[in-house]
Amino acid sequence: MTVATHTASRPCRLADVPHWDGEADALIVGYGIAGACAALEAAEAGASCLIFELASGAGGSTAMSGGEFYFGGNGGTPVQRDHGFADATEDFLNYMMMAGGPGADAERVRLFAENALAHYEWLQAQGVPFKGTYHPARTVEPFTDDTLVWSGSEAAWPFSERARPAPRGHAVQQEGMGAGRVLMEKLVAAVTVRRNIEAQFDTRALALIADADNHVHGLVVRSDGSERYYRARKGVVLCAGGFVSNAEMLRRYAPDALRIGFHVSGGNDNGSGIRMGMSVGGAAIHMDQFFSTRPFIPPECLIKGIFVNERGQRFINEDAYHGRIGQYIMRQPSGNAWLLVDNSIFERPKLFPNIEVAAVGEHWAEIEHELGMPAGELVHTVETYNRHAAAGSDPIFRKHADWLQPLTEGPFAAMSFGDSAWPAAGFTLGGLATLPTGQVIDPEGAVIPGLYAAGRTACGLPRWGEGYSSGMSLSDASYFGRLAGRHLAAA
Amino acid sequence: MTVATHTASRPCRLADVPHWDGEADALIVGYGIAGACAALEAAEAGASCLIFELASGAGGSTAMSGGEFYFGGNGGTPVQRDHGFADATEDFLNYMMMAGGPGADAERVRLFAENALAHYEWLQAQGVPFKGTYHPARTVEPFTDDTLVWSGSEAAWPFSERARPAPRGHAVQQEGMGAGRVLMEKLVAAVTVRRNIEAQFDTRALALIADADNHVHGLVVRSDGSERYYRARKGVVLCAGGFVSNAEMLRRYAPDALRIGFHVSGGNDNGSGIRMGMSVGGAAIHMDQFFSTRPFIPPECLIKGIFVNERGQRFINEDAYHGRIGQYIMRQPSGNAWLLVDNSIFERPKLFPNIEVAAVGEHWAEIEHELGMPAGELVHTVETYNRHAAAGSDPIFRKHADWLQPLTEGPFAAMSFGDSAWPAAGFTLGGLATLPTGQVIDPEGAVIPGLYAAGRTACGLPRWGEGYSSGMSLSDASYFGRLAGRHLAAA
Repeated sequence: MTVATHTASRPCRLADVPHWDGEADALIVGYGIAGACAALEAAEAGASCLIFELASGAGGSTAMSGGEFYFGGNGGTPVQRDHGFADATEDFLNYMMMAGGPGADAERVRLFAENALAHYEWLQAQGVPFKGTYHPARTVEPFTDDTLVWSGSEAAWPFSERARPAPRGHAVQQEGMGAGRVLMEKLVAAVTVRRNIEAQFDTRALALIADADNHVHGLVVRSDGSERYYRARKGVVLCAGGFVSNAEMLRRYAPDALRIGFHVSGGNDNGSGIRMGMSVGGAAIHMDQFFSTRPFIPPECLIKGIFVNERGQRFINEDAYHGRIGQYIMRQPSGNAWLLVDNSIFERPKLFPNIEVAAVGEHWAEIEHELGMPAGELVHTVETYNRHAAAGSDPIFRKHADWLQPLTEGPFAAMSFGDSAWPAAGFTLGGLATLPTGQVIDPEGAVIPGLYAAGRTACGLPRWGEGYSSGMSLSDASYFGRLAGRHLAAA
Repeated sequence: MTVATHTASRPCRLADVPHWDGEADALIVGYGIAGACAALEAAEAGASCLIFELASGAGGSTAMSGGEFYFGGNGGTPVQRDHGFADATEDFLNYMMMAGGPGADAERVRLFAENALAHYEWLQAQGVPFKGTYHPARTVEPFTDDTLVWSGSEAAWPFSERARPAPRGHAVQQEGMGAGRVLMEKLVAAVTVRRNIEAQFDTRALALIADADNHVHGLVVRSDGSERYYRARKGVVLCAGGFVSNAEMLRRYAPDALRIGFHVSGGNDNGSGIRMGMSVGGAAIHMDQFFSTRPFIPPECLIKGIFVNERGQRFINEDAYHGRIGQYIMRQPSGNAWLLVDNSIFERPKLFPNIEVAAVGEHWAEIEHELGMPAGELVHTVETYNRHAAAGSDPIFRKHADWLQPLTEGPFAAMSFGDSAWPAAGFTLGGLATLPTGQVIDPEGAVIPGLYAAGRTACGLPRWGEGYSSGMSLSDASYFGRLAGRHLAAA
């Protein structure tokens, strides 16, 4: 029989399956954190699982990440409580609702807010280590093996006005950055050793297998150069990441994300999971949203600087999360911005020590002139900022008093944050619409039988670039990956 | 036989069609301008057509519009040339590429730029009247029966730097606003009298009929309370409008558009066309984009005012298109903005005479105080603007010298442009991805056989809220509606 070429955008019809090469209750596409957690939970509930991974090993984009989770509520995780942060569920929930933006999913947020502590314990039970210590200095992720960090805009306006601030970033224990690798090692150990779940590597998921009603029954994959047909007795779980690696999809769905210069990705965020879901009628939502950042901290003293655009205007409170600032930078005229510092706080960003210092001068007017700004604007901006900062307030942009210090000690400098000077790092946030159970739904909210999605293949808790906070993606992918596995097993 | 309930998000399978109630070469869903033009062109090429319309008469959202088209290039339309605007194709094209934003479709833009004049003639040949006169005063649409108006940001920075400005809005002849009604009357006359094309009113398109490969073969409709099955010998053309009337779709795809208070819509922009296209694997793109405006002109003297946000900052050159300003207003803190004027230019917007005057005073410091702004910011903004305006320049925001006049004649006033004071008017720009032929494509660019889309069901020339210019939607819907009809007829 001649088999037509399969593509993610068209399901293989059940009637066209030439033979079955295997089957399991759950077929899981992608072996990052979402796939691992879906498998663990499904297996716990007695379902057989088979994981397909395009790469030669597990990890996906999770292994490239900082290994940071977003946890809180219920009076605080043990590490929050140990360090004096009694994090109320409603504060945690309110922050996540704000962070989710105008399309926030209240049901999903509520569920996670109420169950985050139990989920933290579950991860530890799988062998994922958290040291339990607090790292108070503002940073992107700990360079130490500490656990608890401020990883969002919690203490910054406007979030701090509607949700009592607490640090909620929980980093997996590892000395240095990139704890995602440790995280995945531990989860893979749980999947393979504890649960004995099979994974096939170097295997590309080509297309869903669906009947004429778009009920999903399996998956076509390619491995060793041939196409194989797997039956899903209970369902397929798409955990294949986002689409930051697919320029054509970015152009169509999130053209501003083409400006991301560094993909926070294992390299296979090609959108195939999302396209497979759409091929059987699944809705893909908030596809324009993405996370992008130029992580200017550490050192935290740089928060005492001020960002300005080419008009010499400030545009954000600099104590906001670096990813929120990154989104605001993108929409400034010409996409340019500079961080202004004085001599007392001048340091280069640890993560980008080669940053361009675009202007240096003994007076702000020199900086203004060197940057080619309209005469008087930058000087007015700095003078106004300094006058208020000296009085301990920032009535215009509302940066917290902790970070207010007049920029008066020359020489002064301006560091470049434009696209060309410092390409943004980021990933996509849009994906398949799902119920909290992980079930993929169509644009009218009807469930696509037999199909689940989790991680960045789904549109989850993080769905608004301006609100993204470090740890939200792993928390979402792991928790809702588990719920998908659990629901599927009970199907 | 029991017929399952059909929904737009799930195709009716060909094998499940109980009987055929009728057939035509082209089944056209929606009787606005896109549907009318698709029918006219398909019929011209010899194809039989059947139009289904949900409302009790033709018109759709087109009939609610200003009846304005966007035309230019090839040295200018006759009316452009008569009034001294030799509009080069490359200028027209460059402007439309900028207006399309980061996701602009170069192929579509090029095709329209080269054929706009011929299309203008075609519309006249269908009986659509254009008087041929020029209305130089800036306005939203002519209140007269004039033709040619400045209907975008052509003469404004940054557009004017990359495309030589020309007025390109061409309004259908009618005394007063709302020439869309005349436009549709003429097109309907052409469809019914000249071409004798049948239309069924009060008929809702429920679902596409597709085979297991998602090739489209027809349409299920409901009329007179029963479901009917129509076969499309050559194809179905979805011209069912956008989705501004569907709050649930807005929430999922364009949550910021929930802030649109007045839908520029005939009332049936419920997204059903887009959902039908997605149900057979069609990609829906740029779904987050929408047009929204608070049309503050006429009178054009208000362009000499300045917009400020709650921080007392300007944020845009006020000579930009009112819809571009509308998009910028939406993203200001709290979504608030005020138009500042002095006594010499004070008038109320003709289209919103009940505008709230939030502050009046003899000095700008009083206005600043009344608006609750940080002390000194508004005063600085106005002083800076006035100083430069007196010298005939606006180095910060680059408003053209024609609109620069110091705001020095008290009393001064601030008019409110926030969501609550003046709800924005708008419609959606995202829709199905199509080739210029109107063929709907999947996320990988493969054609869905038998399926076409045009008008706001498709994502066309206008696909970026910041770049939308009046007339682009009707130009796109009519021209690419025609191409869809033509391609279908030749299928």
